[in-house]
Amino acid sequence: MKSLITIEPRYQETDQMGVIHHSVYAVWFEMGRVKYCDDIGLPFKEIEDSGLRLAMIDLRSIYKKPAMFGYRYKQYTYLSDFSRVKMTFRYEIYNEADELVHLGESVLVWLDKDLKPTNVLKSNKHIYDLFSKHVLKEIQNG
Amino acid sequence: MKSLITIEPRYQETDQMGVIHHSVYAVWFEMGRVKYCDDIGLPFKEIEDSGLRLAMIDLRSIYKKPAMFGYRYKQYTYLSDFSRVKMTFRYEIYNEADELVHLGESVLVWLDKDLKPTNVLKSNKHIYDLFSKHVLKEIQNG
Amino acid sequence: MKSLITIEPRYQETDQMGVIHHSVYAVWFEMGRVKYCDDIGLPFKEIEDSGLRLAMIDLRSIYKKPAMFGYRYKQYTYLSDFSRVKMTFRYEIYNEADELVHLGESVLVWLDKDLKPTNVLKSNKHIYDLFSKHVLKEIQNG
Amino acid sequence: MKSLITIEPRYQETDQMGVIHHSVYAVWFEMGRVKYCDDIGLPFKEIEDSGLRLAMIDLRSIYKKPAMFGYRYKQYTYLSDFSRVKMTFRYEIYNEADELVHLGESVLVWLDKDLKPTNVLKSNKHIYDLFSKHVLKEIQNG
Repeated sequence: MKSLITIEPRYQETDQMGVIHHSVYAVWFEMGRVKYCDDIGLPFKEIEDSGLRLAMIDLRSIYKKPAMFGYRYKQYTYLSDFSRVKMTFRYEIYNEADELVHLGESVLVWLDKDLKPTNVLKSNKHIYDLFSKHVLKEIQNG
Repeated sequence: MKSLITIEPRYQETDQMGVIHHSVYAVWFEMGRVKYCDDIGLPFKEIEDSGLRLAMIDLRSIYKKPAMFGYRYKQYTYLSDFSRVKMTFRYEIYNEADELVHLGESVLVWLDKDLKPTNVLKSNKHIYDLFSKHVLKEIQNG
Repeated sequence: MKSLITIEPRYQETDQMGVIHHSVYAVWFEMGRVKYCDDIGLPFKEIEDSGLRLAMIDLRSIYKKPAMFGYRYKQYTYLSDFSRVKMTFRYEIYNEADELVHLGESVLVWLDKDLKPTNVLKSNKHIYDLFSKHVLKEIQNG
Repeated sequence: MKSLITIEPRYQETDQMGVIHHSVYAVWFEMGRVKYCDDIGLPFKEIEDSGLRLAMIDLRSIYKKPAMFGYRYKQYTYLSDFSRVKMTFRYEIYNEADELVHLGESVLVWLDKDLKPTNVLKSNKHIYDLFSKHVLKEIQNG
């Protein structure tokens, strides 16, 4: 499963080069993860309400073309790997001509309320099951 | 007492007009308040550690000249009014030629940990006393 | 005419008080203005492509209730005053229970490409006419 | 050569987990690059004034420990690779106990004013020379 969001860059996200500032992609990726959680039936707020937290431990952002204010972009988000302690999401952003403009990958670890690493299968089997059945391992082309 | 910080605008704070985006001033004002608290001997972290919170309820930002990346600015922050429930800060930002580029005023209310309004004199007399003795009422020229 | 946008706060927009940081409202107001321009048939990008710029000169933000991640908000944006040199927008943000959570007002001036003040009626009559016919003066209750 | 900046996280940079939001590191890295340019005698503004632009094409951010408001951090920035078309910077962030909290690496390409790739040796030999003599290749431990 790949979740889709449409992004209309905000004017505030531009910089004086006239493009979307590179720090913004991490925020768009996060919006993609929130939509992904919604799509699998687990609003992100419910994850936090259950006492779990997710911490970014590794983030990669690869720029193919600039994104600009005044245009629309499509971002696909999917889960490419999942275990009891962490998950890996991938992101693909396309412009209106369906050209790839940006790629990303991020690894998040499960934490408890005190921000200590936790085993999500032990902490919350329902959440573990929901994510694990939507992993999209791309063994063949990953 | 007026607290002083030097601001070197970040490239990320620019927008495609080539100036600092107007939403950034609220962040600079906040940095000014943090420095102000340090200067009166009350690190902002101590306020939160004591269980108190400060919520912005009214913010005014007045633009005289644009601020730009590559230049330095001086921001003065002072407390212009203070009561048991709220405080008013004022901000003045000057460029390297000592021209006023921006003015601001903001009103903050004291909240408890559950984000309910609280009387700071009752909650924490030490904090109340520190702020109240540094108020700079400008009756004559305000 | 009042333009409407639905806002789903981003996780990145929260702060450690657990609410949307107050500097974010200026960004939401800007999104409202962009939608407003779309709604009157003048995409914001066209304004800049025509050589005009809009600079914020006065911004007021009034907080009634906190906004939080995991909830949706409706923001209405309208033009409350307009002249050849500047315009005033107002903003109203409501929560899912239709309670007012935030109010705003901002004044923007027309600039040319060199960021010098300009008379929009002289610079671009089409743009002047489009805005001027949508002003929503609230003489009675403003 | 390694450039050093001291970072005092801004309250606005926190999120509701109580830590600095992960999208902020890219901004701190950028501040490090600006300081690096200053340190080698080439203020970043001069680079843009000369007509050159730098575009981020690959960004990696690795989280060891959270950064938090109320503490100070030291960030070292250095150039780990350099050619006529791109440069690679590395970043190391340490807390007050000198523990590594964050690592980063980013690749930037040289563009002209129209955002087309350019050869910096041809475009501006002075800039090429300044960067190339400060590269810190860590062949032995890289």
